[in-house]
Amino acid sequence: MTRPGQLHLNAFLMSVGHHEAAWRLPESDPYADLNVEHFKNLARIAERGKLDSLFLADVPVIFDQVGRRPSGILEPTVLLTALAGATQHIGLIATASTTYNEPYNLARRFASLDIVSGGRAGWNIVTTAGLDSARNFNLDALPAHRDRYERAAEFVDVSVKLWDSWDDDAIVADKEAGVWGDQDRIYPPAHKGRYYSVAGALNLPRSAQGRPVLVQAGSSENGRNFAAKYAEAVFTAHQTLPDAQEFYDDLKRRAAEHGRDPDRVKILPGIVPLIGATESEARELEAELERLIRPEYALTQLADLLGVDPGELSLDAPLPASLPEEEQIEGAKSRRTLIVNLGRRENLTVRELIGRLGGGRGHLTFAGTAVQVADKLEHWFESGAADGFNIMAPVLPSGLAAFVDQVVPILQERGRFRTAYTGQTLREHYGLPRPANTNTANRPTALLP
Amino acid sequence: MTRPGQLHLNAFLMSVGHHEAAWRLPESDPYADLNVEHFKNLARIAERGKLDSLFLADVPVIFDQVGRRPSGILEPTVLLTALAGATQHIGLIATASTTYNEPYNLARRFASLDIVSGGRAGWNIVTTAGLDSARNFNLDALPAHRDRYERAAEFVDVSVKLWDSWDDDAIVADKEAGVWGDQDRIYPPAHKGRYYSVAGALNLPRSAQGRPVLVQAGSSENGRNFAAKYAEAVFTAHQTLPDAQEFYDDLKRRAAEHGRDPDRVKILPGIVPLIGATESEARELEAELERLIRPEYALTQLADLLGVDPGELSLDAPLPASLPEEEQIEGAKSRRTLIVNLGRRENLTVRELIGRLGGGRGHLTFAGTAVQVADKLEHWFESGAADGFNIMAPVLPSGLAAFVDQVVPILQERGRFRTAYTGQTLREHYGLPRPANTNTANRPTALLP
Repeated sequence: MTRPGQLHLNAFLMSVGHHEAAWRLPESDPYADLNVEHFKNLARIAERGKLDSLFLADVPVIFDQVGRRPSGILEPTVLLTALAGATQHIGLIATASTTYNEPYNLARRFASLDIVSGGRAGWNIVTTAGLDSARNFNLDALPAHRDRYERAAEFVDVSVKLWDSWDDDAIVADKEAGVWGDQDRIYPPAHKGRYYSVAGALNLPRSAQGRPVLVQAGSSENGRNFAAKYAEAVFTAHQTLPDAQEFYDDLKRRAAEHGRDPDRVKILPGIVPLIGATESEARELEAELERLIRPEYALTQLADLLGVDPGELSLDAPLPASLPEEEQIEGAKSRRTLIVNLGRRENLTVRELIGRLGGGRGHLTFAGTAVQVADKLEHWFESGAADGFNIMAPVLPSGLAAFVDQVVPILQERGRFRTAYTGQTLREHYGLPRPANTNTANRPTALLP
Repeated sequence: MTRPGQLHLNAFLMSVGHHEAAWRLPESDPYADLNVEHFKNLARIAERGKLDSLFLADVPVIFDQVGRRPSGILEPTVLLTALAGATQHIGLIATASTTYNEPYNLARRFASLDIVSGGRAGWNIVTTAGLDSARNFNLDALPAHRDRYERAAEFVDVSVKLWDSWDDDAIVADKEAGVWGDQDRIYPPAHKGRYYSVAGALNLPRSAQGRPVLVQAGSSENGRNFAAKYAEAVFTAHQTLPDAQEFYDDLKRRAAEHGRDPDRVKILPGIVPLIGATESEARELEAELERLIRPEYALTQLADLLGVDPGELSLDAPLPASLPEEEQIEGAKSRRTLIVNLGRRENLTVRELIGRLGGGRGHLTFAGTAVQVADKLEHWFESGAADGFNIMAPVLPSGLAAFVDQVVPILQERGRFRTAYTGQTLREHYGLPRPANTNTANRPTALLP
C-alpha cells in the first residue's frame, strides 16, 4: 500500500442523475426533482453504503433551459432537513451563496440544520456566477469575481463569529434560580466590516460538531486562496491525474502557508462512474445516454461558459482557435479552462465535446466494471490526487445504488473504506476535530495546562 | 346555533410553552427549544386533534433576555420541514420577515416547504420590529413602520409573481421528444419596483395548493390594511369580546373594500388556555406559573414595548399616567395599546400587569375546565369575534395535549370541529380555494366559458 488510509466519499445528488439526458431513460421519473421521497430514497442508499455525506448544488435561478432537463431545485437547506429525518448518520452538505444572502440569516439556517441533524451539516460556500442570478437580486450586473470572493471571505468570518457567539456552557438551565442562559457567556459579534455589520449574537447555540463543516468548490486563483484559508473539504473537477495531482499539491501547500494542517483540508475530485457488469455494458450505457443528448441545448450553455456567442460554435468543427482567456471570464473561471483544454488536447469537435460534458459538466467520466472503478479511485488516492471522491451518479437512483452495492464493498475489502459509521457528526466522518470556540479559545484560562 | 359552521384551530408552538416561566416547572425540559423530537411530538399531538395548522413565530435576534427563558429559536422553515416529515395532514405556518430577506430566496424557501409537505405551507408575513434586529442586518436604525409595510406589500407582490411563474402545465416531460419543460409556459416576473427588482422565474413550479397561504398578525392601522389586502388568515390578540368583535368586523369590512370575499380572510384570536379538571385546579396552575415569574426580566421588556425607560416603571405602582402614544411607537403598535388599556381598565400595578402578560404577552389567558374553555371558544365564534383560534398552550407538551384530548372532543361533539381531515392541503383545511395562476387567469382563453 503506497499510501495508507481510507477514502472519504460524498454522494452528489441531482434530480434523476448528473447526465443531462438521464431523465429520458425509461427507468427515470421526470418529476423526481420535486419529489422528496425520491431524495429520501437516495439518502438511504448512500447511508447504506456508509458514505460520509450527501451534497446538493444550488443556484438561485432556473438552472439551464427548462426544455433540456428537470429544472426544479428544492432549496437545499430545506431538502436536507427533510433528508435528516430519513437518515441517522450521513453528513448533509448544502450549497448557498454568499453574494445573495445575509450572514445572520444564512448562518442561522445552517446552525438550525446542524442542530436538527445532530451535527451533520456542511456548507458549500459559493459566490454564484451568472448575470441571471444577479438580476433576481436587484442587480443589473454580476459583481466582479474578485469582489464576490472578498465579500465571501467577510461573510464566512461573520458566520463563524455568529456560530461561536454562545459559549458551550452558556445554557445554565437553573430552574431553582430562574436563570436559563448566562448572558456573560454570550459573545455578540459586534462586527463592522467592509460589506457587513452584524451586531448581535445568533439565537442558537453551537451544535454537536461545534459548527457546520465549510466546503468549497471553486478552483480559480481566487477560489484556491479562499479554499486554502477556509475550506475543510474541497470539491473539484479534473480530467487527468496530473491535473488532479497539481491541484492537490497546490491546495495543501497553500493551506500550510495559511498556518493550517493540510490534512484538515479534504480534497474530493468529482467522478461520474458508469458501472456495468462488463466494461462493454458500461460503455453501452454511456453511449445510450450520449445518444439522448439534444446538442442544441448544450451548445447555448457551452457558448455562455466560454464567453462567446452561440453562433461562433459549430457542432461539427473544433472549438474556435481564439477564445476569451480565463481572466476575462467573470463566472466559472476554472471550469472554462478545463473544458477548453479538454477540447484542444483531444482535438474534439464541439459535438464530441458536448457528449463528453453531458455526464459531468467537466468532471471525470469513467465507464467500467465495479473493480475498474474501485481501481481508478484507489489509484488516484495512492497517487496523491485525492483524499476521497465526489460521486456523481449519471443516473439516479440506479447509478448510486450500483456504486454503493458494487464498488463500496470492494473498497471495504481492501481496507479503503469504513464498514460502519464510527462517529455521529459530519466532522467525525471526515476526521476533522470539533473546533474550539473562537471567542473562548484564547481566554487566559484556556491557555493553562 | 346562532351561527352555523366549524372553527379553525391553529397550534402556536413555542419551546416548552407560551408562559415565560413554563420552563421552570418540574415537567419541562429546559433544552426542548433545541430538540427536534420535542417539536415532532407536539406536531403529532396537534395532528391527533385534527388541528388545521401549526405555527412558529420568529425574530432574527436573541428573543428577550437569555436568563429569562429558553432563547434558542430554530429557523422556522427548517423546523417545519422536519415536522412535515413527522406528520401527514396538518398545515405548517412559518414566520419570516419581509424587511430582512430577499423575495427570490424567501419565496423559494416557502415554495420548497410547500412542495416537500404536499401543499401544507403558510407564511406569516412580518415586518420585524426592533432596533436589535435591524442591527443584525447592516442597519443602524429600525426602518419606519410605514416604510416596513410598503416594503412588505411589494415583497408579497413579487412573491406571488414568483410562485405563479410556472403555469400548472409547464412541465411537459416528453421523453420521446426530449423536452422536459415548455419555456413558453414560464412567466418571469420582470419586476422592477420601488424596493425590488426581480427578473427571472422561480426555479420551482406551483405546489399542490398553488402557493403558500398568506398569514398576517399585525393589528395596527398599517397592519389591518395590509391584512385586508393580502392575508388569508389573521392571528390577533384581544383581551375582551367587544375588542375582538370590533377587529373582526373592521377587518372583514376592509377586505370587502379591497374586493375580496370576507369569508376568505379567517380571523383567529390567540388564547392561552389553562385547563384543569376543575376550575380551581386550572387557577392553581395559573398561580404556580405566576409565582415562577422573575419580574425584573419582564420589567425591561415591558418598558421597551411601551417606549419608556425601565426606571420609569415601578413594580408596585400602576402604569405612569403619561406614556408615549401608539403613533410614536415604531415597533409593535397595537400590542402597546392593548397592554396600556389592560393596565388602565383593571387598574393593575406593573407587577400584576406583568403577571397577566406572562402567559400570553397580551393574548387572552383563560383558566377553566375543558367545558369552560370550549364554551368560551364557541361563544366568541357565535358572537362574531372569531373564525377560529390560535391556541397558545402555556406549557408544552402538556397544555396542548390537554386541549387536544379534552377540549377538541367537546367541540367535535357539538359539531364545531372536524373529526377527520377531509382535505390534504392547508388551503383545504381553512376552506380556501386553490388560487388561479395570476399569469394565466386573465388570458383570453381563460375567459371563455
